Amino acid sequence: MAFEQILSKTFGIQIRGLESRNSQILTLGYGILKMAKQKNAISPTREQDYPEWYQQVVRAADLAENTPVRGCMVIKPWGYGIWENIRDALDKMFKETGHKNAYFPLFIPKSFLQREAEHVDGFAKECAVVTHSRLEADKDGILQPAGELDEPLIVRPTSETIIGELFARWVQSYRDLPLLINQWANVVRWEMRPRLFLRTAEFLWQEGHTVHASAEEAIEETRQMLHVYADFAENWLAMPVLRGEKTEAERFPGAESTLCIEAMMQDRKALQAGTSHFLGQNFSKACGIKFQGVEGKEEFGWTTSWGVSTRLIGGMIMTHSDDDGLVVPPRLAPTQVAILPVTPKENTRAQVLEACERLSTELKGQSVFDSPVRVEVDDRDLRGGEKYWQWVKKGVPLTVEIGPRDLENGTVFVGRRDLGGKREGMQGDEFFASVGNLLSAIQKNLFDQAAAFQKEHTKDIDSKEELYEFFTPKNSSKPEIHGGFARIHWDRQVQWEEQLKNDLKVTVRCIPEGESEPGTCLFSGDSSPGRVVVAKSY
Amino acid sequence: MAFEQILSKTFGIQIRGLESRNSQILTLGYGILKMAKQKNAISPTREQDYPEWYQQVVRAADLAENTPVRGCMVIKPWGYGIWENIRDALDKMFKETGHKNAYFPLFIPKSFLQREAEHVDGFAKECAVVTHSRLEADKDGILQPAGELDEPLIVRPTSETIIGELFARWVQSYRDLPLLINQWANVVRWEMRPRLFLRTAEFLWQEGHTVHASAEEAIEETRQMLHVYADFAENWLAMPVLRGEKTEAERFPGAESTLCIEAMMQDRKALQAGTSHFLGQNFSKACGIKFQGVEGKEEFGWTTSWGVSTRLIGGMIMTHSDDDGLVVPPRLAPTQVAILPVTPKENTRAQVLEACERLSTELKGQSVFDSPVRVEVDDRDLRGGEKYWQWVKKGVPLTVEIGPRDLENGTVFVGRRDLGGKREGMQGDEFFASVGNLLSAIQKNLFDQAAAFQKEHTKDIDSKEELYEFFTPKNSSKPEIHGGFARIHWDRQVQWEEQLKNDLKVTVRCIPEGESEPGTCLFSGDSSPGRVVVAKSY
Repeated sequence: MAFEQILSKTFGIQIRGLESRNSQILTLGYGILKMAKQKNAISPTREQDYPEWYQQVVRAADLAENTPVRGCMVIKPWGYGIWENIRDALDKMFKETGHKNAYFPLFIPKSFLQREAEHVDGFAKECAVVTHSRLEADKDGILQPAGELDEPLIVRPTSETIIGELFARWVQSYRDLPLLINQWANVVRWEMRPRLFLRTAEFLWQEGHTVHASAEEAIEETRQMLHVYADFAENWLAMPVLRGEKTEAERFPGAESTLCIEAMMQDRKALQAGTSHFLGQNFSKACGIKFQGVEGKEEFGWTTSWGVSTRLIGGMIMTHSDDDGLVVPPRLAPTQVAILPVTPKENTRAQVLEACERLSTELKGQSVFDSPVRVEVDDRDLRGGEKYWQWVKKGVPLTVEIGPRDLENGTVFVGRRDLGGKREGMQGDEFFASVGNLLSAIQKNLFDQAAAFQKEHTKDIDSKEELYEFFTPKNSSKPEIHGGFARIHWDRQVQWEEQLKNDLKVTVRCIPEGESEPGTCLFSGDSSPGRVVVAKSY
Repeated sequence: MAFEQILSKTFGIQIRGLESRNSQILTLGYGILKMAKQKNAISPTREQDYPEWYQQVVRAADLAENTPVRGCMVIKPWGYGIWENIRDALDKMFKETGHKNAYFPLFIPKSFLQREAEHVDGFAKECAVVTHSRLEADKDGILQPAGELDEPLIVRPTSETIIGELFARWVQSYRDLPLLINQWANVVRWEMRPRLFLRTAEFLWQEGHTVHASAEEAIEETRQMLHVYADFAENWLAMPVLRGEKTEAERFPGAESTLCIEAMMQDRKALQAGTSHFLGQNFSKACGIKFQGVEGKEEFGWTTSWGVSTRLIGGMIMTHSDDDGLVVPPRLAPTQVAILPVTPKENTRAQVLEACERLSTELKGQSVFDSPVRVEVDDRDLRGGEKYWQWVKKGVPLTVEIGPRDLENGTVFVGRRDLGGKREGMQGDEFFASVGNLLSAIQKNLFDQAAAFQKEHTKDIDSKEELYEFFTPKNSSKPEIHGGFARIHWDRQVQWEEQLKNDLKVTVRCIPEGESEPGTCLFSGDSSPGRVVVAKSY
C-alpha cells in the first residue's frame, strides 16, 4: 500500500493537498508517524487569533505584502485583479449616474489645505510633506534634499481643496451645474498602525466631487451615491451593509453630514466601507466656487464628495474567508474557474491538457453576470494537491480537476469554494451547462451567509448593563470574538458617546436610514428619536 | 432679410458656427460691417506660432489645464476619456503578452534610489522629496512641516529600485521566471519647462518590469514590447513611428540599451513616444534579484523595463490636429459620433430630439473596432453653430446634425473631422449602414496623411552642409517650421553627436531597426555601419 493510502486510511484525510496545509507536520523517522491534528490551510484559525488569521489569509492568497516603505503595501497580481474588477464595476455605475472621470494633481499646496479650518485639523496630523525638489551631494558626497520649495506641498490625503480651486474656475453659471466629476487615484495618510488593505499609508481609491445649484440637489446626490455604494457592496462584494448617517463626532472634517455604509466582519466588528459627504457651502466658500443663478444673482455652490478605497478588499476578505483562506465572490474573482489538469502519467498528459484547454475555450464562450466566464488552466508543473490548495487559498469560486480517468468517464471533479472547498464528481456536460448557475449560486450563498451572520449578531439592547456585557469578552485573558451590532436608544448627547468610547472602545457606527421608532435613552432615561447602531470597529 | 442671411450672402460663410470662430470679429457700429478674414477656429494657426497653437488646441478641446501646483496639470473629462481608451487598449495588449498588473509604493527611500549609480544621477536633479510626516502649528500658530523622517522619501520618478527590492523577494528559482509585471501609476519628475501632456511634473503612465533567466530572453522581451508600442501607435493613435535604438548618450539611466519609437510632429520635430529598456544585470545586482538556475547555481536575473505615458496624448494632438482644433482618431475618441439636434422651432423640438435619441440607440447597437459605437446626443440648450464648433474643436470623428427638414426628407447632415469638418447631406439609412466604414476610413485616412507627411519630411542627407541647411530656419527672425528627419551616415563617434547638439540643437533620435547599409560618415569621412535618424525633438 502506498504511503498516501496508509495516511488516508489511518487519518481519514484526502491526501491531495496535504502537503500545503500549514499545520500538518509529517515526521517520518525511527518508524514513528506523527501528525498534528489541525486540518486547516490557514494557521491560526479565526477563533484562535483573528488579526493574525487575517494577515495569513492575505499572505496565503498572495494578495499583497508590506514593503520597506513604512505603511505602504504592494498589491500583487491576484489582489490587483480584484481591485480592477471593483474599479470597473463602480466606474460603470458612476458613469450611469452621469459622472465623468478626470485627474487632478497629486500635490496640494499647504495654503490650500488650510482654507477649510476643520479640514486641515483633520488631516494635518498624518500627511506626507514635500519640501525639496532635488537631491544634491553634500561636501562628504552624500545626497541630501536640496532646492527647497517656497511653499511645502502635501501629498493629497483627499482632494477637496485642490479640486475646489479648479471647480471655482469651471463653474460660472447655473448652466455649468450640476458638475459631476470622479477621480481614481492614490492618496496618502500617515497611518500609525498600518494593516494591509484596512489601513495603509498609501491607498488606492476613487473620490467623487460634485457641485450643485441647491442644497436639496446636493443632499440628493449624497444619498444617491450612498445607495450606489450599498448596491455595489451587496451585489458585488456580497457584503450586506447598514446604510446610515454618522454622528457629528464621526463626520468627515469639513462636512455638514456624512452618510456611510457599515458592514459586519466575522469578528463582529464594524467596517466603514464607504462614505458620502454633504459638504454644504463650506468648501465652495473656502475655494470660491460661485455661480450666477437663474435670476442673475451670484451664489455659492453646494458640494458633495464620496469615496471608497482598497479597504473594500479588506472588508471582502473578512466577510467571506474561512480557515482555509480567502473566499472571493464570483463577480469579483479575477479567475472564476480554475481548471487543474491531473497528470500522474506522462503518456496521458497531452490528452488531459488538451481536454482542459477545450473546456476552457468552451467556458470562455459562456457569459455570467453579463461578462464572459473568466477561466484559467493551471498547467504548472506542481503536485496536484499543492496546486489545488493554492487555488483554495486564493479563494477561486470553482476548481475543476480533470484526470485520465475523467477522460474515460466524461466526468470532472468540481470544488465549490463557498462550501468549504467540498468537491464532487459531475458529468462534464452537466458542469458545462450549469457553470453560470453555479457561479450565481455561489454569489448568492455568500451574501446569504453573511446576511445571516450579521442578523445573528445584531441585537436590540435596552439596558446599559446588557450593553456593557455585550461588549465585554467572556474571558478577559483571551480577546475572543464577542459583541456585534447593538441597536440602542440614545438621546444624542455627546457625553454618552464619549463614555461608550472610553469604557468599551465602542462607537456609534451610524444612525440607520429610516430608523424613526422613538424610545428611551438607556444612559439618561431621556427620550430618543430612534435607535442607533453601536459597535467596535476597524 | 435676417442679419445671418446678409452675412451669408455677402461673405459666403455658413452662419452656423460663426460665433465661435475665434478670429472672426464682428463689429456692427456706425452702419459699418467689419469682419476679419481669418476663418479658423484656432488662433494662432500652426504656421503662425506652432507652440502657442498647441496650447490653444488643448484649451479649445477642453483636454487639460495648468493648475496652481507648478508643472502639474488637471486632465479634464475629454482628455481623461482619451487616456482611458489608451489605457484599456494597451492593457489588453500587455495581458495578451502574458503580463499581469500590480501596484507598488509611491515612495522610494533615498537609499534605494542610490543603489544604481547612473540611475540616481539621472533622476536626483528633478525629484520631489518628502521629508516630514505631518504639519504642526509653530508658536505663531502657523502650520509648519513636522515629524521629520529618518530617511527622506522620493516620490517615484520611475520604479526600478523599489520594484527590484520586491522582485528580489519573489524570485527564488528559475521556476519563478519569467516574472512579467506591469503597473499603471502616476510619477513625478520636477520639470523646469512644463508643457501640457508633453512635459509635466506629474504624469500618468504604465511601467512594465520583467525578470528573465537569460540575457537573450530579456532582450527578446525588450523588442517585443517595443513592437507592442509601435503597433499601438500606428493602429490606435494613427501615428506612424520609427522603431530603433537610442545611442549611448540618450539611454535610460542604468540601461544597457534603450529601444524607442519616434514620431514626427507637424512642426517636423521628433517626439519620443515610448521606450523599452534592456537593463542587463545592473538592477538585479543593485537590488539582489537572484535565482537558482536549472543546474542549481545561483545567478542574477536579467531585467527589462518599458513605459509610455500621457505624453502619447501630446503626440496624438500634434500628429493630427489642424487649425480648427483637435482631431482624435476614432479608435480613441471617447465619443465617436456626436448627434446634434437642430431645433430652431419649439413645435418640432420634441420630434427632432426623439429622432436623435432613436438614431443614437441604433448606432450604439452597432460595433466598430470590436466595440459598440460610442455615441452622444448633445441636447444642450446652445446655438447650433456654437455647438457644432465645440465638437469640431474637440476633434470628434463624426458629427451628425438633424433638423426638422431632415425629418421630412429622411436625411442627416454629416461632418467628417478628418476632412477639415467638411459636411454633406446623406440619407439617414445610408449613414446608419455605413457608420462603421466611415469610422474605419477616418482612422485609416489619419494614418495615411501622417505617414505621407513623415515621408515628405524625411531625407537621406550625405553632406554636412546640406545637413546644416536642413536644420536652419530660412528666416532667422521668425522660427518658422523647417527641418524634419535627416537620415545620415555617422561613424558613431560621440564628438559629432555633441557637435550636432551644440550647433543645431539636433540629436540622434534613433538607429532604426534593420538599418544596415554601410556608408561614409558625413562628419569624419570614416565608415558608418548604417544610417541614423537625426532631428530636433520634444
